[in-house]
Amino acid sequence: MELSKIDVYAKSIILQAGDRIRQSFSEKWTIETKADANDLVTNIDREIELFFIEKIRAFNSSHKIIGEEGMGEKIQSLDGVVWIIDPIDGTMNFVRQHRNFAISVGIYVDGIGKLGYIYDVMRDHLYHAIEGQGAYMNDQPLKTLEEISLDKAIIGLNAVWATPNKRIKHEPMIELVHKVRGTRSYGSAALEIVSVASGRMDAYLSMRLSPWDIAGGVMIANEVGAIASNLENQPINLLERDTFIIANPFIHKEIVENYIELK
Amino acid sequence: MELSKIDVYAKSIILQAGDRIRQSFSEKWTIETKADANDLVTNIDREIELFFIEKIRAFNSSHKIIGEEGMGEKIQSLDGVVWIIDPIDGTMNFVRQHRNFAISVGIYVDGIGKLGYIYDVMRDHLYHAIEGQGAYMNDQPLKTLEEISLDKAIIGLNAVWATPNKRIKHEPMIELVHKVRGTRSYGSAALEIVSVASGRMDAYLSMRLSPWDIAGGVMIANEVGAIASNLENQPINLLERDTFIIANPFIHKEIVENYIELK
Repeated sequence: MELSKIDVYAKSIILQAGDRIRQSFSEKWTIETKADANDLVTNIDREIELFFIEKIRAFNSSHKIIGEEGMGEKIQSLDGVVWIIDPIDGTMNFVRQHRNFAISVGIYVDGIGKLGYIYDVMRDHLYHAIEGQGAYMNDQPLKTLEEISLDKAIIGLNAVWATPNKRIKHEPMIELVHKVRGTRSYGSAALEIVSVASGRMDAYLSMRLSPWDIAGGVMIANEVGAIASNLENQPINLLERDTFIIANPFIHKEIVENYIELK
Repeated sequence: MELSKIDVYAKSIILQAGDRIRQSFSEKWTIETKADANDLVTNIDREIELFFIEKIRAFNSSHKIIGEEGMGEKIQSLDGVVWIIDPIDGTMNFVRQHRNFAISVGIYVDGIGKLGYIYDVMRDHLYHAIEGQGAYMNDQPLKTLEEISLDKAIIGLNAVWATPNKRIKHEPMIELVHKVRGTRSYGSAALEIVSVASGRMDAYLSMRLSPWDIAGGVMIANEVGAIASNLENQPINLLERDTFIIANPFIHKEIVENYIELK
């Protein structure tokens, strides 16, 4: 397995996809809602996913593909080489803001993360990592995360988790919101994960993320020492939707143990 | 009063200040906390405010200056020409993220907003407006805001306002958070206000903003039809810290009347 060859190819098709997305702003999109009325999808999401599928099949037809829009195979295991792709993470931002969305690609071999990419399309920032070789934003290495205390931390979370909801007890979340230095919410899991990897935020958590939301970012964040798990502190499972946290290693355990009580 | 002459000068010194801020990332700053431990100030905030004061005095010594760091005059009225300046809005983002902060400048004549500027320093996006002449991002005109319903709106707010706090009843805020399509929090009032002016968000509200947080942005947002007020739907007062909301005109009243109950 020549990871460096896959890496060069993956970067090339991600940048091509980004060009296509930027070009699409001059067109009229079709926008639909999924099961959840606030979960949007456009023809561009689908077109970009198909673009990746065609390009990956042309590169190596034995590679498998899991994509948000479900146009890849239905996959029951992570055996072999699996590309886990979100063509546009943060579709609501894509539609309304024309910024603050990303392409997310993780490449796993027999379940082990080998290559990770998050492309902040409008800033033209490509975050990337090869297992064991560190993480980069474009050509600039990301630094190993430094010690921080929770009262000085910036954490990313959706305000709904600090209000009564059916997934998590909100009282400890309220304590967390008041404990930290500040909270942020950007509306793209991929960009929030690379914010943690880049040291711009110290944790990000969510109640419901799918493999394509996290596969690319987790690979990048691992390389700088961030810790990713579900909210029960179990390893993440890239075949299922689950709860999720990624955090600076000095506050991961404190958040999970002291502030998280799932229902 | 030649507004166009002031406009050219204001843009010139704002861009110079942005250059200086970008250059400062290679230096070691001093970082202090203000009365609130989460309210940061650096030597760069102070240096940039002094830079504006010197440049404005050199331009016209009769102009008055209100600045966040308090290095301008103590001002009791808005008579005459008053520059209201935040050298770095979003200092926590400046320190931790090296992005997501802005320079904010509003120029008022006898209390009437005449010129407004928000400079997103790291994106190199200068939002600006002259009263009655529309608003722009760099050379691109911002569009008049279009009708939107609250259930499709994206609103900016800090998660703490949907938790028990001493300023606002949190129960209606919880309803608001669940009603809208999504919430965001960027950590810079100036950037959140221009997000509303640019149609990327539909409302932004805060419990405690000072004149320098809003003076520049409100001028810009007015030009595209956004409505700004305090949370009791009273006109904003640029001599006092107050509550604040800026919103798309089709949802401003609905938010203030149905979801806001100050304590």
